Amino acid sequence: MIKEIAGHRSVRQYRSDAVPQEVLDEILAAAVRASTVGNMQLYSIVVTTSRSVLDELAPLHFNQPAATTAPVLMTFCADVHRFSMWCRQRGAEPGYDNFCWFMNAVTDALLASQNAVLEAEAHGLGICYLGTTLYNAREIAGVLRLPAGVMPVMTVSVGYPVQMPPLTDRLPVDAVVHYDTYTDYTPEEIDRLWREREASAETAELLAVNGLPNLARIFTERRYPKADNVAFSRKYFDDLVAQGFFEQ
Amino acid sequence: MIKEIAGHRSVRQYRSDAVPQEVLDEILAAAVRASTVGNMQLYSIVVTTSRSVLDELAPLHFNQPAATTAPVLMTFCADVHRFSMWCRQRGAEPGYDNFCWFMNAVTDALLASQNAVLEAEAHGLGICYLGTTLYNAREIAGVLRLPAGVMPVMTVSVGYPVQMPPLTDRLPVDAVVHYDTYTDYTPEEIDRLWREREASAETAELLAVNGLPNLARIFTERRYPKADNVAFSRKYFDDLVAQGFFEQ
Repeated sequence: MIKEIAGHRSVRQYRSDAVPQEVLDEILAAAVRASTVGNMQLYSIVVTTSRSVLDELAPLHFNQPAATTAPVLMTFCADVHRFSMWCRQRGAEPGYDNFCWFMNAVTDALLASQNAVLEAEAHGLGICYLGTTLYNAREIAGVLRLPAGVMPVMTVSVGYPVQMPPLTDRLPVDAVVHYDTYTDYTPEEIDRLWREREASAETAELLAVNGLPNLARIFTERRYPKADNVAFSRKYFDDLVAQGFFEQ
Repeated sequence: MIKEIAGHRSVRQYRSDAVPQEVLDEILAAAVRASTVGNMQLYSIVVTTSRSVLDELAPLHFNQPAATTAPVLMTFCADVHRFSMWCRQRGAEPGYDNFCWFMNAVTDALLASQNAVLEAEAHGLGICYLGTTLYNAREIAGVLRLPAGVMPVMTVSVGYPVQMPPLTDRLPVDAVVHYDTYTDYTPEEIDRLWREREASAETAELLAVNGLPNLARIFTERRYPKADNVAFSRKYFDDLVAQGFFEQ
């Protein structure tokens, strides 16, 4: 397996060392080699290294150490603005401010991000994907001064690791793979897929700390409860409208 | 730069040779190493190799050669169904059938896809991302028998290349990169960023064939005209509702 893919883990605490510009350049050059819909490159990467802007972004990522200790935050944005501007300058009428093209632009942004991540790891850096970007997209757009047609999708924190955490466990590969068509899960199969994780020492500790009887309830009652999910859904959707992606 | 990242291109015509199961296994093992929100693995990969299902999928990808000649189509799906089933089996109330978690699941699916793509290329395979998945998501969901909570996001065709096409040109890296905050483009900068592509022999040929005065109008009048984009936006959004992602 490609070494960087096999060795990937999320690093949530970084040393204060800056990332040299030539390393950032390699990471960004790798990002732009990813496939992009129609070769339109409908994304932008905002690379934040200045302390004052990092300090504005950190609370929007809930001040998690992966955000507060990172010397670099890369915010990957869906961007139909640049391409649309080019079209207008050429007397062509763009029509990319809609949901389908948001999805195309999200795809571009995320494929580029994964290339950037692997390349960063090839240079000895650690990274963490910050899903909090979805929760505070409007506020992040404000800090980063994103114009209409540009929407934050994902932030990657980058820095030299304080230490390398162990690889994260995953469900057995067959949990996510279906051949030819989707074969729905039986209750027994669900039990089998989660068995190892539910039996782990890490899970036992989580249950004790949280006073809950099983791991699923840690997700639904502590980490990602429904009420929060619904509220963040509405917010991100509203933000998407506000950034001009539903102009149809 | 990581060799597979530097050498990535879209391959749109494949030899008829099957992809050995052990190679597919390596590709899928690489896919699951990608980061995933909360380690929840909210995606499924439907690996289609049987001729009859491939033949049902091909027209949904508009019978492009990348679909019709591929021995393998991998449909990456946002999947909150499996995780929700596990929650319910444990007496936990899931709340992931909403837009925010669709976006989380899309992220999981696309990061996994890029790992799969690079690993496939490490094994001498060629791939092509088929964005047509967004256009016919409902029909693809039907062929693949996706239950509620599972939504097609991207298809990757995989096979041994008939020939390796040249690397695709990209805009200069600084076209997509902003430091600290977003710096909007001036008209002069837009001209500079597209200059090389607009001056290429390939563009000259496209203009001649299409009888259009510039490259932007090839995009807006031939490839991705506004009326189509709006229609596909509505369709994908409706499909998303139909697959149960707006149950809030």
